[in-house]
Amino acid sequence: MARTAYVNGQYVNQLYASVHIEDRGYQFADGIYEYIAFYNRTLLDGGLHMARLERSLKELAIALPMSLASMQLVIRELIAKNSREHGGLYIQVSRGVAKRDHAFPKPIPPALVMTLCAPKFPKLNEIKDGVNVMTYPEQRWARRDIKSVSLLANVLAKQEAAKHKMRESWLVEKDDTITEGAVSNSYIVSKSGELITHQADENILGGITRDVVLQLAKKAGVKVSQRPYNLVEVKSAEEAFITSTSINVLPVVKVDDMVIGSGKPGAITQKLCTLYEDHIYEQTGFRRL
Amino acid sequence: MARTAYVNGQYVNQLYASVHIEDRGYQFADGIYEYIAFYNRTLLDGGLHMARLERSLKELAIALPMSLASMQLVIRELIAKNSREHGGLYIQVSRGVAKRDHAFPKPIPPALVMTLCAPKFPKLNEIKDGVNVMTYPEQRWARRDIKSVSLLANVLAKQEAAKHKMRESWLVEKDDTITEGAVSNSYIVSKSGELITHQADENILGGITRDVVLQLAKKAGVKVSQRPYNLVEVKSAEEAFITSTSINVLPVVKVDDMVIGSGKPGAITQKLCTLYEDHIYEQTGFRRL
Repeated sequence: MARTAYVNGQYVNQLYASVHIEDRGYQFADGIYEYIAFYNRTLLDGGLHMARLERSLKELAIALPMSLASMQLVIRELIAKNSREHGGLYIQVSRGVAKRDHAFPKPIPPALVMTLCAPKFPKLNEIKDGVNVMTYPEQRWARRDIKSVSLLANVLAKQEAAKHKMRESWLVEKDDTITEGAVSNSYIVSKSGELITHQADENILGGITRDVVLQLAKKAGVKVSQRPYNLVEVKSAEEAFITSTSINVLPVVKVDDMVIGSGKPGAITQKLCTLYEDHIYEQTGFRRL
Repeated sequence: MARTAYVNGQYVNQLYASVHIEDRGYQFADGIYEYIAFYNRTLLDGGLHMARLERSLKELAIALPMSLASMQLVIRELIAKNSREHGGLYIQVSRGVAKRDHAFPKPIPPALVMTLCAPKFPKLNEIKDGVNVMTYPEQRWARRDIKSVSLLANVLAKQEAAKHKMRESWLVEKDDTITEGAVSNSYIVSKSGELITHQADENILGGITRDVVLQLAKKAGVKVSQRPYNLVEVKSAEEAFITSTSINVLPVVKVDDMVIGSGKPGAITQKLCTLYEDHIYEQTGFRRL
C-alpha cells in the first residue's frame, strides 16, 4: 500500500511528496525535526517531544506552522491514513520558501512535513548481548541542543560506525570527553554504581528518552551524575549503554577495543531496559520484550 | 518571464521546481553547493569553482551527478533559457533520495539542482565608503572547508548582522582569532602593509575569490601572510576588507566599534578592488566600475 505523507497542508502519496527547491531546509539546513515513537497508534511521550519541537523552533525564531493542538489532529489523521499500529513519526519544520539569502526572509509560512516509518527496534540479540561502539572526533557545531536538520557531522560519524560494523559512534571532544553518540545519548556506570552522562547543555541534544531514563534511574535508587566523562573513565567503567527514541535502552559492551565490565550487559543497564519497557507499556499498552 | 531551473534532468518552471521530501539534502544537510558569478553569459573562474565542487563531493563521498563537461552543457542551456546576461549560478548536489537513515544509503543517483539569480552587486557607496561589520562567536562545525549546505550557523551569524544593520559578521573563535565572515572571507592590512588572512585549512572555506585576490595581491608586490589573526590586530589594522563571489572585494571601515585606519577604504584595498574588476573584465568582457 502506498504510504501517505503530510506536506504543507496536504496528505499526499509519499512517493511523490516534494518541497520547493528554495525551501530553506534544503538550501541552508534552516529547520528542525522531531522523531516520535508510537505504539498502538499512541505517541510515546508525545507531549515532551512537542515541547522540544516548540523549543527548537523558538531558538531559531521559526514560527510554529500551526498550533500544537492542530498538529496533533494531523498526526492522528496521518496515522489513520497509513494504517500503521507501531512505528516512528518524523516531523520536519523549516523556515519556509524564500529567495536564497542567508539572513532570515520577511516572515513567511514555515514548511511542515510529516511521515511515518516502520519501528526501528534493535535486534533481540543486540539487547541480550549488547553492542559495540567506536569513538569518533566531535565535529558538530556549537548548538547541538537545537534539534536542527544540520546533521551532516552526525551523518559522517554514523557512516564511519557503519563502515566499521559498529552500532554507533561516540563523539569525543579534543579534551577526551565524550558528549554523546551520533544518533543517541551515551552513558557509563562506574564501578561504584554511579550512572554518568553528559549534562544537557549546548554540547548535546537533550534527548527525551534520556530524560525519562534518568528519572527512572533516580526512582530506582541509582545515583545519577550529569557531567562530562572521558575515555579513561570509559575504560574503567562497569557498564555502558545508549538511548534514543528508536532503540530505547541498548547495552554497550565494547568501546573501540575497550571491553566494558564483564563484556556483558550490566545489571543497572538491564534494569533500566526493563523499566523503560514498562514505561512504554504504561503509556501505550505495548510490550515487545 | 518565468525563471527556469534545472532539477534532476529537467528544465522546469522555477515556481514549481521541487525535490523529494526524503532528499538527504533536506533531511540531513547531506549535500554541497557552489555559487558562480557570470557576466556576458560567461562563468567567472568557472574551472576553479567546478574543481571545488568536485572536491567537496569527494570529501563527502558523493558521486558527481554527471561529468563536468555535461554539467557545463546544462549550465550553458540554463543561461540561454533564462535570457540572463549577468548574475549568479547556484548549483546544489545532494547525496540523493533514500529512506531516512543517517548512514549513507547504498549508492543512489545524487540529486542536482541549478538555478540562476540576478547579480548581487554591492551598492556603489558601499564600495566607495566601505562597510561596517560586527563580530560574532564562531559556532560552525569542524569541516568548514567543505562547501556543504550545512549552513545553519552561517545563517544565524548573518541574521545577527542584518539585525544590527551590519554588512557581515566576522566569526571569532574562543581564542579571539577570526576565521572568516559568515558569507565571505575576511582580511586585514597591518600598519606595515602586510595583508593578513586566515590560512585555507579545515577552519575556513577556501574561497575562489580569495585565491584570485591573494594572487593579484602577490603580483602587485603586496606581502601576504596566511595565518590566524586576532581582535587586537584588527584594532590596530590600517585596512580591512571582505571578498566573496557576490561582492568581489569590499572595503571594511569598522569592526564592532573599532574604526579601521582612517575610517575610509585603504590604498591596498582599493588597488585590489580595481585589480579584481580587471580580472572580471579580462575573462568576461564585463566592467561595472
